[in-house]
Parts: sequence; C-alpha cells; structure tokens
Amino acid sequence: MVGKLKQNLLLACLVISSVTVFYLGQHAMECHHRIEERSQPVRMENVRSTVRTASSVNANKTFAYNKDMPLIFIGGVPRSGTTLMRAMLDAHPDIRCGEETRVIPRILAVKQMWARSSKEKIRLDEAGVTDEVLDSAMQAFLLEIIVKHGEPAPYLCNKDPFALKSLTYLARIFPNAKFLLMVRDGRASVHSMISRKVTIAGFDLNSYRDCLTKWNRAIETMYNQCMEVGFERCMLVHYEQLVLHPERWMRTLLKFLRIPWNQAVLHHEEMIGKAGGVSLSKVELHILISRFLPPDFPKDDMPVIAPMLAKLGYDPYANPPNYGKPDQKVVENTRRVRHFFLCFVFFKSVSNTF
Amino acid sequence: MVGKLKQNLLLACLVISSVTVFYLGQHAMECHHRIEERSQPVRMENVRSTVRTASSVNANKTFAYNKDMPLIFIGGVPRSGTTLMRAMLDAHPDIRCGEETRVIPRILAVKQMWARSSKEKIRLDEAGVTDEVLDSAMQAFLLEIIVKHGEPAPYLCNKDPFALKSLTYLARIFPNAKFLLMVRDGRASVHSMISRKVTIAGFDLNSYRDCLTKWNRAIETMYNQCMEVGFERCMLVHYEQLVLHPERWMRTLLKFLRIPWNQAVLHHEEMIGKAGGVSLSKVELHILISRFLPPDFPKDDMPVIAPMLAKLGYDPYANPPNYGKPDQKVVENTRRVRHFFLCFVFFKSVSNTF
Repeated sequence: MVGKLKQNLLLACLVISSVTVFYLGQHAMECHHRIEERSQPVRMENVRSTVRTASSVNANKTFAYNKDMPLIFIGGVPRSGTTLMRAMLDAHPDIRCGEETRVIPRILAVKQMWARSSKEKIRLDEAGVTDEVLDSAMQAFLLEIIVKHGEPAPYLCNKDPFALKSLTYLARIFPNAKFLLMVRDGRASVHSMISRKVTIAGFDLNSYRDCLTKWNRAIETMYNQCMEVGFERCMLVHYEQLVLHPERWMRTLLKFLRIPWNQAVLHHEEMIGKAGGVSLSKVELHILISRFLPPDFPKDDMPVIAPMLAKLGYDPYANPPNYGKPDQKVVENTRRVRHFFLCFVFFKSVSNTF
Repeated sequence: MVGKLKQNLLLACLVISSVTVFYLGQHAMECHHRIEERSQPVRMENVRSTVRTASSVNANKTFAYNKDMPLIFIGGVPRSGTTLMRAMLDAHPDIRCGEETRVIPRILAVKQMWARSSKEKIRLDEAGVTDEVLDSAMQAFLLEIIVKHGEPAPYLCNKDPFALKSLTYLARIFPNAKFLLMVRDGRASVHSMISRKVTIAGFDLNSYRDCLTKWNRAIETMYNQCMEVGFERCMLVHYEQLVLHPERWMRTLLKFLRIPWNQAVLHHEEMIGKAGGVSLSKVELHILISRFLPPDFPKDDMPVIAPMLAKLGYDPYANPPNYGKPDQKVVENTRRVRHFFLCFVFFKSVSNTF
C-alpha cells in the first residue's frame, strides 16, 4: 500500500518535472532566439539605407536623437520677437531652445548654393553625392549642433532667424519638425535694427529704405515656404499679438506643437515686471511706433517697397499702426514695470550722488 | 521485486529531471540577464559624450562607421596626380576612394572661416557651439559624405585635392586617418591646368605666373601641415617618382597605410598598356617637360615665385628637369602604349575614310 503510494508520488513528481523541463526548454530556446535577433545586423535586399541611432550622455541620462525627432524651429527676420519666442518656450520645463547657433543658417545657405546650379547638381550626382547623401550629411550636422550646444530635453528647439529661409528643406529632412515663423510689422523691425545698430548680413543700416526692402524680401520667402509646408507644420506668430495677448497665443502655440500646457511659459512675460532688457520696449511697442518712420520717408512708397506689410495684415498707410488692446494682465504688468523702473532709476541716481 | 525496480527507475528519472530543471532554470536566468544588459542605456557620471554608431546597409551587408575608422585622405594641388593615386588605391580590393566629392573642401573652408575670427569664436562659445560641438558636427557631415557617396569597403578613402588645406584639422577630428599629399613639379601642374583649361578657384588660367604663385601658396600650406602631423600620419608622394617607379612606391605607400599588399594596385599602372586617358601623358611626362615653360617666362624669377620647388626637391633652374629613369616595366609599357596608340590612330583614320 505504502509502496504503491510512493510509486504514485514519484510518478506525479516525474510528470511535474517533465512538464517543467519542457517549459523551461522552450523558454530557453526563445531566449536564445531573441539574443540572436538583436546581434544579427539588419539585412535588406539591395537597399542603401542608414540605420543610425545616436545618443548624448549627460549627467546619467542618455538621450537618443535622430532625424525623426519632434524638433521646433523658430525664425523670421531679426528683431521680430524671435528671441522672445524662444525665451518663452525655454521657460517650459520640457523644451530647450538655447542661443542662436549662428552656424546653422550659414551651412543651410551654403547647401542652398550648391543646389542652385543645375550643372553643379549633375557633377555632384556623378560623384555619388546625390540629394539623398547630402541630406543625410545635413541632418547629421544640424542634429549634432542642435543637440550638443545646449542641455538635453524632450523637445529640442532651434532659433536662428534666417534658418527659415530653408524652411521647406528643413521640413523635408526633419519630417516631424514644426516651424514657428515670427512676423512683425516691418517698420518696427527695421526701426529696431537701425536704432540698436544690429548688424544683419545684407542689410544696410544707413538706409531705412534698403532695410525695409530687404525685410520684405526675407519675410516673403519665409512666408511662402511656411504656406507651402502647410498649417500643420508651420505656424505664423504675430509678435504684436503675442505681446498683447500672451496666454491666448501660447496656448494656441503649444496646442500646435502638441506639447502640454505649462504655466511657466507665461513667466517670461511676467518678467516684464522686472526692470531692464527687451521686456520694457516690448510692452511699450504700441506707444513707440509713431517714431518708426523717419520724418523724410515718402509714405506713399510704403506699399511699393514693402508689399508684405499688407499681406501680413499690417496697414501700410497707418502711422502709427493700431495692433489692438493688450490683455488686462499685460496692462497691469506694464504699470508695475513703469513704476518699478522709475523707482529703480530714482534710487540709482540717489546712490550715485552719495 | 518489480515494484522496487519501478520505484528505483522512477527515482532515477526524478533525479535526472530535477537536475535538468535546475540547469535549465539557471540558464534561463542568465539569458534574461543578458537581454536586460543589452537594453540598459549607457550610464556615465557627469560626462557629456557621444555614444554614436552608425551603419550603412547595402546589399545584405552592414558597415559600421565612426570617427575612429582608418580613413585615407588624398590631396594636393590639382593636376598633381591625385586622381592617379586614388585610382591605383581604388584598384585594391579592400580600398574604396571614389570620385571627388566637391563638397568636402567647401565645408572645410567654411569651417576654417568661422575659426579664423577670434570675435566669432567667442560668440560661438557663448552660444554653446564650442569647438567640441563643431568638431562633432563636422565629423558627422564628412563621414556621411565619405561613406555614402560610394560603395562600402574596409578602408574608405577620400580624394578632394584641396581638402588637405585642412590637413591638421582632419588629422585631429579623425584620429586614425592617414594622409597622402601628392607633390608634383609646380611647372608641370600649372602647364597642365592651363593647357587643359581646368578651372580651379583662385587660379587665373590666363597667367602662368599667377598660377605658379598660387601653386606655391597652396602646396606650402599643405606641406607644412603634413610636416606638422608627422611622418606616421602623413606621407609625401612625388608624382614623378610614383609614375617612374610604381611598384616601389606602392609598396612603401601600402606599408605606410598598414594595408596588405595586393598586386591589383599595379593594374592601373598597367592600364598604360591601354590607349587613351591620363596614362599616356603620365608616362611621357619627362619628354614633355621642356614645353612647360612659356617662351617669354623670365627663368631667374622661378625661385622667387615658387620657392617650394626647391624645397620639394625640384631644380628651379633646370629646364627640362630630370626626374630619373623609369623602371623597366614602365619602359616596356610605354613602348606597348605607343605602338597600340599608333595602330589605334591608324585604324581609326582608315575606318573614318571608308
């Protein structure tokens, strides 16, 4: 009796063990398969393609980056609020723009030159330097600069005003990138660059007319490309509207970028409460505009020199133009800034005297 | 008795199964560990560095490439045998050079411009675009072009004559790269570019003197950088010597490159046996040299205009210069070429008549 029990017990154990062996054996084979798959290089038939991942290691974190990441490009004619835009986005914890890289627009311009001549294109193709190869090289270069010149972040952003002269090209080589084209009343941009002596290649700061002409040319090419890539990829941001109605526009913007809202993006705007810097002139824009036109400037020429003004919604004849009323918050901030600024100036002069 | 036997058998089976379960269980755990390790991103303490591998997939093969690969850069003043050099290396089954990329010297020149101005360097640094970041971007761009514009091979090579104006820089960003600086009698190079109307940026083909001056300037800067990186990284190759004594020089070259000898590299030289192309003029160099100087060229000016001639071992007063006697093989090839060429010309004219 006991013997039979023992036997049955042994049999039962044996069955269980066999099942376990079978299961573990299968598992081991699967595991091996998975390891082998990962070691196997990608094999494709007659296809020249790149399997490329790169990662930047910084402070214990690894960030993978590649051409398909959701980049944000901010641009426009200089003195159109591009820095404000990037500063506000930089305030968002998940976004990093950083300074103008300076080199990105230059390499894009160089690339454009090569593409311009059809003879050159033929020679390059014959040398194996096809569009595909060039694009690959450009992606690599641009990514290295964008990723490495600042801190890592889930959303990387680049602000080089004239990079958007190659908006269509960037949209093609970075298929998930989005674009924010800053638009401002050309007369204000030109006034700003002249009065602040901001050197911009191709702009003769001694001539208001020349600057306005160049403004028109530059914004036209960027605007056209923005329209070309379409509203899902490129958004026009009117500087004046951003300044007067910051929350509304930041909400629209972040929705466009598909990035969750964060109140921090309005903190930069609230920096108006702190004296100094761009903030001040930004708010007082609508007051200063009357000084934008040089007294001897023939006003009837305006639509001829700068047809983009009207196209972008600015009245070429209005002097000063009317951009609308600011949000209440902005009005309060402005008051606070003025008050603070006056106190600041007063106390500084007092301390300088004693 | 049978019952006891059965029991013992069952027991034995159970023991075996248990051992198997134990073994498979351990194996499964190891396997899991290995899979987990491979999925874990690289973690480093407070280091900004790039872990970057890229691979090009072509016809079922994957080739990894990165800045540490053993690249070969061939350059010099145009019309100095750079194409011959790359063609001979291309004949080696393990080396691929391919055509001039045309874009590589341009981007190197653009990069040099940025580096030139100290003011600009400060601005770039402030923007986070440090030397490290720029180098990373340049490596990425150059690699994409070099790798993707031709077929993969164990040793990749690039021939863009003026790329070696950035020899020192290339040597720094590609620490395992080696350089072959083609050197030729400047009078011959200049004669070649003028008579063949080869457009070279900065060279006025209407002026022998200007071309010689520019030749001197260009070869001087490349020669100095070659000396600077040292003999283990950069080798001077005298075109005339390569042509007159191909096997000796190819053996020396491949030893310098640490690439195994392959007879195929002399096949290009044996292409002299086939009519047409550069081959012919190459061999007949020492015969044609007397025609290199324009009749009105003041010979005493030669060392003044082109001091690099003497430095590189060419007698600035000798007209025609003497480069030495060719190898016997080369002599035989030349005879064969001449004979073949004459027959070719004869038969072609005959067939054109009828």
